[in-house]
Amino acid sequence: MPIRKPIIGVMGPGKTELHTEPVDKHVELATELGKQIASHGWLLLTGGRNLGVMDAACRGAKSAGGTTIGILPGPDALDSSDAVDIPIITGMGSARNNVNALSSTVLIAVGMGPGTAAEVALALKARKPVVLLATQPEAEKFFTSLDASLVHVASDVEGAIVHVKALLAAQTEPAT
Amino acid sequence: MPIRKPIIGVMGPGKTELHTEPVDKHVELATELGKQIASHGWLLLTGGRNLGVMDAACRGAKSAGGTTIGILPGPDALDSSDAVDIPIITGMGSARNNVNALSSTVLIAVGMGPGTAAEVALALKARKPVVLLATQPEAEKFFTSLDASLVHVASDVEGAIVHVKALLAAQTEPAT
Amino acid sequence: MPIRKPIIGVMGPGKTELHTEPVDKHVELATELGKQIASHGWLLLTGGRNLGVMDAACRGAKSAGGTTIGILPGPDALDSSDAVDIPIITGMGSARNNVNALSSTVLIAVGMGPGTAAEVALALKARKPVVLLATQPEAEKFFTSLDASLVHVASDVEGAIVHVKALLAAQTEPAT
Amino acid sequence: MPIRKPIIGVMGPGKTELHTEPVDKHVELATELGKQIASHGWLLLTGGRNLGVMDAACRGAKSAGGTTIGILPGPDALDSSDAVDIPIITGMGSARNNVNALSSTVLIAVGMGPGTAAEVALALKARKPVVLLATQPEAEKFFTSLDASLVHVASDVEGAIVHVKALLAAQTEPAT
Repeated sequence: MPIRKPIIGVMGPGKTELHTEPVDKHVELATELGKQIASHGWLLLTGGRNLGVMDAACRGAKSAGGTTIGILPGPDALDSSDAVDIPIITGMGSARNNVNALSSTVLIAVGMGPGTAAEVALALKARKPVVLLATQPEAEKFFTSLDASLVHVASDVEGAIVHVKALLAAQTEPAT
Repeated sequence: MPIRKPIIGVMGPGKTELHTEPVDKHVELATELGKQIASHGWLLLTGGRNLGVMDAACRGAKSAGGTTIGILPGPDALDSSDAVDIPIITGMGSARNNVNALSSTVLIAVGMGPGTAAEVALALKARKPVVLLATQPEAEKFFTSLDASLVHVASDVEGAIVHVKALLAAQTEPAT
Repeated sequence: MPIRKPIIGVMGPGKTELHTEPVDKHVELATELGKQIASHGWLLLTGGRNLGVMDAACRGAKSAGGTTIGILPGPDALDSSDAVDIPIITGMGSARNNVNALSSTVLIAVGMGPGTAAEVALALKARKPVVLLATQPEAEKFFTSLDASLVHVASDVEGAIVHVKALLAAQTEPAT
Repeated sequence: MPIRKPIIGVMGPGKTELHTEPVDKHVELATELGKQIASHGWLLLTGGRNLGVMDAACRGAKSAGGTTIGILPGPDALDSSDAVDIPIITGMGSARNNVNALSSTVLIAVGMGPGTAAEVALALKARKPVVLLATQPEAEKFFTSLDASLVHVASDVEGAIVHVKALLAAQTEPAT
């Protein structure tokens, strides 16, 4: 097995046009999360668009010298975040959410909307671990009801990073 | 606009190997739902596999003389339900869940698992109406929290069909 | 194995805006081919759009009482041919060309462009038989160089139908 | 517009089990091409599998200190080349060939098979420039017949790199 940098997926709502308080909170959390992911030497993967959590996480990672991968839904990179280093252009709309889920070693949801919910569900379908950060209680209860063994809840960035570290460590341990 | 038969998507867990009571209940509901969909002259669309809710809904529809479309995840039709008339072979795994969501005029979830959750979330992302039939309360609360205007809850097949009729009628009414 | 109607895919350029003579020829051939496919009791599958060969084949099939399936690239059915009975909405752009290839029992190319070339190549990749009807000599030579055992050339609709019949018969014969 | 490293796609047959002379030639060319791509500071994108041209190009790029992206067709990274730094897991089979085409600034085909032909055709469909290196004359004639303005032919690695440089320079020039 080659030694590769883990790919940490950060998913979350793209719409910031309302500029409501909760969304601002998610953008702030995503920025800090991106920084932390880069500081730990992990690659950041997002949905790549220049909006909301996707854009904020990429900007955070770049501010800490990280590398960012954006899995774009459209047929070109025109709506890509400027903070994406490697735009992967899928042209497949929301079906690209499955690429996000499959390509992430661990997937973190920051906030929740229909697209993010699809990414979490597709990650669980593929037996990938998920961390829910600052999602509504309804989301925590629902995804835990789907698969409690794969769903982890964090209330702040530090807690999310602790989960990621433990999950990465568990993957590299020999099975007994 | 051409006059086409509405396509009603029925989604639900594929695994029946446990033969637990709830799954048997979902299979029973899906069979009756398939019958009703066919009786109303609508086309049935499912994930196409020979398992669980997908298979049961197709068998129900065929027993009432309906036409069934199966959107298969694999690269061939080997795991298709025998009750699928038109197998669409996508070869794209769970990314095909987005095809299920986009191609259904109304999407009904019978029971819930990670794949079904993805289909419901992707339907909401695409602004499609969803009916939840016999899903856990956590699912009802979560999806309603995502978009209350598109999520409808039914406790039996009759109730689900009432929702579908109303949703189809609303689509053909002129916007005012 | 269930008895299903074979699905015959008809692929070809969508652009008719130039109204040049060769395109008119392809539209004429596709219309007649659609009629013949319906007359033989086969299902017709196309790329579904209201343009060129796709639209013409569907119109031909409907004029002979057939059933038509359209695998659409966009996120809705707005650009669907009116002659499509069953619109499958993929939202995945040209990646849907692989769904066309996989879902067709036999794939017929009427004329040739980049999208059609992708469909023929993807069919060969999936080991599906292909009939080239009225394509340029360069296409015949190239695809034959890729896999002579799967590529069949026809100069008129009658010849294409003869190939389809033989290919369908070969599939239903018991392997020895 | 952000300054990003260009992504150069290298496509080619994955099967090397026959170990025939032409395939060995393609593996040799792909290795040298990967080295050159890395030396120029470009990112390398391939289909990611541990076979043939894909694997060889990645190994070449790594030997020159480059960064390699592999767009994998399967649902996990088990068949990834060890020389892939960033595995993107699509789970969508040959439909991922469209992701290869869309994500490459310039696409180079080394040798030719059905999958590579699909990638070239999908690149042309998306109006992306293509370089054909060591492909059969039938391929050169066919793809040139589809779109002569986008298809460039090279007989050796040096010639291919000259084409890539010119194509990248043309993209960054202001339109007049």
